[in-house]
Formats: sequence, C-alpha cells, structure tokens
Amino acid sequence: MKIAIDAMGGDYAPAEVVKGAVEAAGQCGIPVILVGDQEIIEQELAKYDTDGLPIEVKHASQVVEMDDHPANAIRRKTDSSLVISAKLVKDGEAQAMVSAGNSGATMAVATLKLGRIPGIDRPAIASFLPTSKGMAVMLDAGANVDCSVDNLLQFAVIGSEYAEHVLGIETPRVGLLSIGEEETKGDELTKATNARLKETDLNFIGNVEGKDIFRGASDVVICDGFAGNIVLKVAEGVGEFVLGTIKSAIDPSQIELFKPVLSKVMAKLDYAEYGGAPLLGVGGVCIICHGRSNARAIRNAIKAASTAVENNVVSYISMALRNRSINK
Amino acid sequence: MKIAIDAMGGDYAPAEVVKGAVEAAGQCGIPVILVGDQEIIEQELAKYDTDGLPIEVKHASQVVEMDDHPANAIRRKTDSSLVISAKLVKDGEAQAMVSAGNSGATMAVATLKLGRIPGIDRPAIASFLPTSKGMAVMLDAGANVDCSVDNLLQFAVIGSEYAEHVLGIETPRVGLLSIGEEETKGDELTKATNARLKETDLNFIGNVEGKDIFRGASDVVICDGFAGNIVLKVAEGVGEFVLGTIKSAIDPSQIELFKPVLSKVMAKLDYAEYGGAPLLGVGGVCIICHGRSNARAIRNAIKAASTAVENNVVSYISMALRNRSINK
Repeated sequence: MKIAIDAMGGDYAPAEVVKGAVEAAGQCGIPVILVGDQEIIEQELAKYDTDGLPIEVKHASQVVEMDDHPANAIRRKTDSSLVISAKLVKDGEAQAMVSAGNSGATMAVATLKLGRIPGIDRPAIASFLPTSKGMAVMLDAGANVDCSVDNLLQFAVIGSEYAEHVLGIETPRVGLLSIGEEETKGDELTKATNARLKETDLNFIGNVEGKDIFRGASDVVICDGFAGNIVLKVAEGVGEFVLGTIKSAIDPSQIELFKPVLSKVMAKLDYAEYGGAPLLGVGGVCIICHGRSNARAIRNAIKAASTAVENNVVSYISMALRNRSINK
Repeated sequence: MKIAIDAMGGDYAPAEVVKGAVEAAGQCGIPVILVGDQEIIEQELAKYDTDGLPIEVKHASQVVEMDDHPANAIRRKTDSSLVISAKLVKDGEAQAMVSAGNSGATMAVATLKLGRIPGIDRPAIASFLPTSKGMAVMLDAGANVDCSVDNLLQFAVIGSEYAEHVLGIETPRVGLLSIGEEETKGDELTKATNARLKETDLNFIGNVEGKDIFRGASDVVICDGFAGNIVLKVAEGVGEFVLGTIKSAIDPSQIELFKPVLSKVMAKLDYAEYGGAPLLGVGGVCIICHGRSNARAIRNAIKAASTAVENNVVSYISMALRNRSINK
C-alpha cells in the first residue's frame, strides 16, 4: 500500500504537508508518495532524517490554487500535484490520495479520475463531529453546496454504511439536519428529503437540530454541503470563542491549574485529531484535509487513508448501494 | 407604553412567561398585558405579590401549538393568545408584542396584523451572537427558510439600520454568511446575493464564514433562515458540549475555583441574556423568544421590546428603505 500526498495543497503547504508525511512514514511506517514540485519537496525533505523511510517523490509542475474553479483544475492543470495524485490512485500506483488544497477541485478531480460508485450521483465529504456520546459522521460537509433530494438520500446510505462498517456502529441512527424536530420544519429540500428517508430501510430517526448533533442524537447527520460547512465552521468558531473567553477570565496565577482541563477540551475540538474528511462515493480512497492543516493533521489524515484502504470502505459502499433501495 | 405578552406561547408557558412578566413589571416598571386563558393566568399570578404592579390580563380562548401550520393559526385560531396579542398592537392598545411560541406562526400573525414596512417582502428575525469584539446581529435567524436574493438584500438594509440606530454602531460592517471568503464560494443564492450586495451603498465587507462570526468579523451577518437557525443551534450545542466537557474534566475538589470562570462564559453564551429576537420589517415591535425561554429570558425580552419602542426602530427601518437603493 502507498498513499499519494498532494504536497502543494493547503495553506501551510509544502512545509507542513511534507513534515506530516515524514511523520506518517517514520512513526507509522506508512509508505507515501509526495506529489508536487520535486525541487521544493526535496528542499523540505532535506530538513529531516528520512534515511530508510518509505517516501517517494513524484514531480508535478502545476499547482491548483484555492480560488481555482474546479473545471479549470481539470482542464488546464493536468500536470498539477492534485491531478497527478489522483492519477497515481487510478493507475494503481497508490491506493489512496490525501490533499489539503482546494476542496471543490479535489472533489472534482477525484470524481473524474477515480469515477463514481454506481448509484452515486455526487460524492460527499464526510466529517466527524465530537459529541457527548463520542462522535457523529456528518455529510455532506462542503463538497456539494446545492443538492437534490436524491443526493441527500445517497449521502444517507453512504454515511450509514461508513458508520456501520468502518466505525463499527450497529444499525447507525441516521438524522436529517433541520431547524426543528417536527417533519413540518425545514426548507423545501429538507421536508422533501424527510418524506423520502422515511420510506427507506435505513434507521432514520427524523430531523436533528444543530444543538442535538453535539448531544449525540444521531450517529450520522445528513445535510447539503452549504449547511454542513456552516456547522463545521460555527463549531470551530464557537469552540475558539469559548476557550478564548475562559483564558481571558482565568487569573494568571491559576493558569497552571486550568491547563489540563483546557487541553482535554481542545483535543476534542481540534479537527487535526480527526485526520481529515473522507470523500465518499468515489471509486477509491480520497481524504480531504482542512486548508489550515498542520503536520499533525496531515499525519492523521494519512493514517485515516491507510485505515480506509485496509477496511475496504469502497467495497462496502458499493455493496450497500446495490442492496439498499432508496429510489422511488 | 404597554407590552402585550403571549402568555400561552413557549415550552414553559404559562408559568415561566407569567413569572417573567411579573419581574418586568415589578423590577423595571414596564406595563404588561398578559394574553391567554384568563383563569390559568390568574392562577399563575396568584403565586406572586402583584399588588400595584402595571399588569393587565386579556382573555384569549385558543392556543397556537408548536406544530401548528402558520396558516392554521391565522385562519382558525383567531381568538388565540398569539393573534390577540398582535391585535392589541394593531389597535394601539399595546405598543409591542412578545411571544415564545411557534416562531413561524408568530411571524405570520405579526406580519398580517401589523403589516409589512413598504419595501419589505418578508420580515426577518434578528438574533444576537456573542463575538470576541462584542456582539453581532444575524438575520434571518429562522423565520424565512427559503429566501430569494431580494429577501437577503432587504435583510441587509434592516440589519445595517438596526445596528446603526439601535446598537449605535457607525457604518456597520455587513457580511454575507457563506462557506468561504472568496466570492466564488457558496450556494447559488449566496453567490447571486454577493454580486448584488456589492452594488449597494451598504458597508458590505463580503462573505463571512461561520467561524468568523465569533471573531467579530462583521457587525451584521446576512443569511436565509435555514442557515441562520443552524448557526444559532450549533452555537448553543457546541457551547453546551464544551462546558460539559470542562465540567467532567474538573477535579471535584477544585470546582469552586472554576465556578467564576465558567459563570462568565455561560453568561456570554446564554440566549436568555439577549432577551429574545426582534422581528424586523413589520409595522410594529414584535419580539420572538426562544421556545425554551425561562422567566429571565421573558423578562429580558420585555425589556428589549420596551427599548425598541423607545428607540423608534420601526421608523428608522422605514426611512432606510425609502432612502437606500437596493433594487436593480
């Protein structure tokens, strides 16, 4: 197994990406292929002792920028680190890809190169949220901003299967993100999706509200990518705000007392702990990282990619889509 | 000035609503009219010493339930506490109304009875979010789940004027909630709204992300009611989650040390402190409270209603809509 890493993608690329890949190869023994400008990557690698580590470099002359339109990445940046990473997976030279770059472009490139699993119209980004009972999987987390009812139904199947087969949750509870528990509450998309989800054989528990997610109301949270991204970013912002308020309220002489407590909270809120978000529904393993990923986030994403490959996530989702009836 | 209170609306009505009204009348001297089942309200009032307080009771025989469709409230519940509260304002017997009941029905009833300010297609619920710099006004917070570009432009004008004339912020910074700062990021509605907002004379600072709200990136946050309600509920859920995690991480012997710090944080996160959400764009003052409002939340909402009346909010918004050009 080898994991292809888009070394040029992300706000702190290539430095932090290369560092994270070195850690994954060194600490976990995961073979990585760093994709991007060879000279720059080798300069970064020279900072570390990589003797004997399973690290390869694959040159790519272009970089997909954060504001590049996905179509532009596909048409004009065919020699970009992102596109070459996907090609390595497509050609079987790597078994998974990891990128912290433009998430829209990553989704488009991975979808084009790895293909969609039959039954999936649009792949989704799954993201993990901490809850008082453990963790919830939310999808879509930002890849598909405008969704149809069918898209959301497919996300429900993907999410349920992921929770069951990868996270080990038996008959996962699937909730639909809305603005009230009653089925009459929500926008047109949500109301129509609620009606259809009730007809499936999924363990659909109805609408869940934003606050219920963090109480562990459901194992899987279904929403379009606009709402999902807002959930993620608001959670990040509120976590930051609360911790900032606490820090400024603490008497400096007592800061040492509070440190262990605050560290525990920060670890639960830190996206870097969760190791990126899998793009589910494509014919291969693809992990999309937060744009601001540091080396630890990249290392954890590479570990998550490795775990996804070992657990045959793609096969489980394919089987589920063949066996479950979600269409009218 | 008198404030009409829907005594039957809210998860803890009528007990907490009546208690909050008694506090507002007693502690702040604000004259209130409690609207609802006279017998039940008088039973509640009998729990307090209300001698000499400016409290009236107005009988209403019906109650709008949380799952009532707004149209049903208007057509069939014409003698409900909600409808009668609005009628009192319409008829000049009260100058503002407060309800913690079904927010969709409250919006529909207030809009029908008080009318829309010329230039407003759909009134919006404004909500207040704590930020590291103070407070942001977000609208719509849940009244209009499916919005048009014109709706959002009108919300921007209302929000800007509210922030300027009621909160005293000079040239308020108006941000559009989206999933990336770049104008290419967002759903179809957001992208189209961004393009139109740039053409107005508002102090439009572009897209703001969920996390930026809590950093105080803008004074006003514009979004549709679906996204806005998700922001509110996620903020509530994450706040609860973080505080819960802290409490469980604290050594019981040190709980007293942490109490003052936690109280400070809880006060900032507690919706009850903010005293309800004004419904802006209707021809009168209407404050919509959280369904779970306790007596303190109701008391603060009554104070907010009183302040809104004193500050002539409705006149300022009317003037702004006449003077600002937001249409193509």
